[in-house]
Amino acid sequence: MVQQIKQKKSFLCVGLDPDMEKLPAHLRTAADPFFEFNTSIVDATADLAVGYKPNLAFYEALGLKGWESLKKTIQYIKGKYPELFIIADAKRGDIGNTSKKYAEAVFHDLNADAITLAPYMGKDSVKPFLDFKGKWAILLALTSNPGAADFQLQQFPDGELLFEKVVKKSVEWGTQKNMMLVVGATKASLLEKIRDIAPWNFLLVPGVGAQGGSLEEVVKHGINPDCGLLVNAARSIIYAGKDEDFAHAARESAAELQGRMAELLWKYEIIE
Amino acid sequence: MVQQIKQKKSFLCVGLDPDMEKLPAHLRTAADPFFEFNTSIVDATADLAVGYKPNLAFYEALGLKGWESLKKTIQYIKGKYPELFIIADAKRGDIGNTSKKYAEAVFHDLNADAITLAPYMGKDSVKPFLDFKGKWAILLALTSNPGAADFQLQQFPDGELLFEKVVKKSVEWGTQKNMMLVVGATKASLLEKIRDIAPWNFLLVPGVGAQGGSLEEVVKHGINPDCGLLVNAARSIIYAGKDEDFAHAARESAAELQGRMAELLWKYEIIE
Repeated sequence: MVQQIKQKKSFLCVGLDPDMEKLPAHLRTAADPFFEFNTSIVDATADLAVGYKPNLAFYEALGLKGWESLKKTIQYIKGKYPELFIIADAKRGDIGNTSKKYAEAVFHDLNADAITLAPYMGKDSVKPFLDFKGKWAILLALTSNPGAADFQLQQFPDGELLFEKVVKKSVEWGTQKNMMLVVGATKASLLEKIRDIAPWNFLLVPGVGAQGGSLEEVVKHGINPDCGLLVNAARSIIYAGKDEDFAHAARESAAELQGRMAELLWKYEIIE
Repeated sequence: MVQQIKQKKSFLCVGLDPDMEKLPAHLRTAADPFFEFNTSIVDATADLAVGYKPNLAFYEALGLKGWESLKKTIQYIKGKYPELFIIADAKRGDIGNTSKKYAEAVFHDLNADAITLAPYMGKDSVKPFLDFKGKWAILLALTSNPGAADFQLQQFPDGELLFEKVVKKSVEWGTQKNMMLVVGATKASLLEKIRDIAPWNFLLVPGVGAQGGSLEEVVKHGINPDCGLLVNAARSIIYAGKDEDFAHAARESAAELQGRMAELLWKYEIIE
């Protein structure tokens, strides 16, 4: 990952969250609109991004057909761009024997490299994912949505907020080689608290773009000597254009972000 | 639901969690082993149970084929036994526009009546599910696994445990007509704390049977004048038998639980 970041001068992850109502009109009548859309986006941006993050909800909403589009999309990416990191954004988590089944679904059937997980059920709901060699668990710590305040920002008697407890546990459960954390870009100032506890873990940061987070603030508070950040953008890239030039528009939007990332990588001396 | 409980003298929910390695050998070569297994179990127990709870992990582990088995199973149940309550045990939860997609997947594509949700992302991750009329959100409050202690049982300065905060929020977000709570049978003594906050919401209680929870303790601490409980058992019923008599063995195991439930409903004056 670090090598790819330095080579591409990018820590961009593109969210592949296709929605039939937002797809360019000419794709809606294709045999597999989501696959056509996704692969066009990937082909247009693969040299600018280090990973792709399909959110499973968008595929499951179409049932069998959606699951098939997702599987084909990942097969396509893995075949053509084996270096790219694929995150199944699934936010799963269940008792041990059940989490193992989710891990099989995402790591074996879909062949993703990583899965996002919700921490509410604790250690035995996360551990089964860490038992898959070469695969990654990405635990929700501090999310970008308003509801993050309901529980994640609640404070315990020792002064810790719930998300800090989650980060502390995560570094006990996994290593910097199999565990990442989700931290929303809309809470950039809190990134430093996370870096105090988990200096070396990669952070997956959604919320730049459509949700309003600032790339510069995220980097200022969250970067480490390996970069240690994967910044995800979905809507601002994949829906940058609405008609036949959508892939070109996606590339332009991704290139704009990548350009800013290259500058920041240079500024923080990750690249020369 | 209350009517079905009184009529069947049962508040049993059967977990449909098929696992190829545990299926009776003669079913493993069927065209759709999970469908054959599930429908045999349902036909053998439909008069003893008020609901069925497929855990999506077990189906997703088989990819497309698993999703198809699940969809067919629900279609079969809805067609033959329309009164039965179908819970998609999915433990989902994401930002608003994404949760809406999960709701479409489970309520429209799969046609389930209810979905289990993880609360970590807060209100806007739960609300989209409550917007579907006649459907139910079932929020994880206190789970039956050891990892429940990691976060759910952590105490805040006001003396409340995290799961109590979740229960308090849940009664603000939903009503007793669209919101239930998951409370593990292995934590029966804590059910009273939940009943203090949410006296009228139905509780979905896993953990009786294979996980070691006591039915009598769950009822003692959790019953309300509408019964207010759905007790789930999976492995102890669906794997009661290992060969061709598996459906008969499942019925016997379900009947044993239902018999104890009937006695308890009578003891607590829910039925005469």
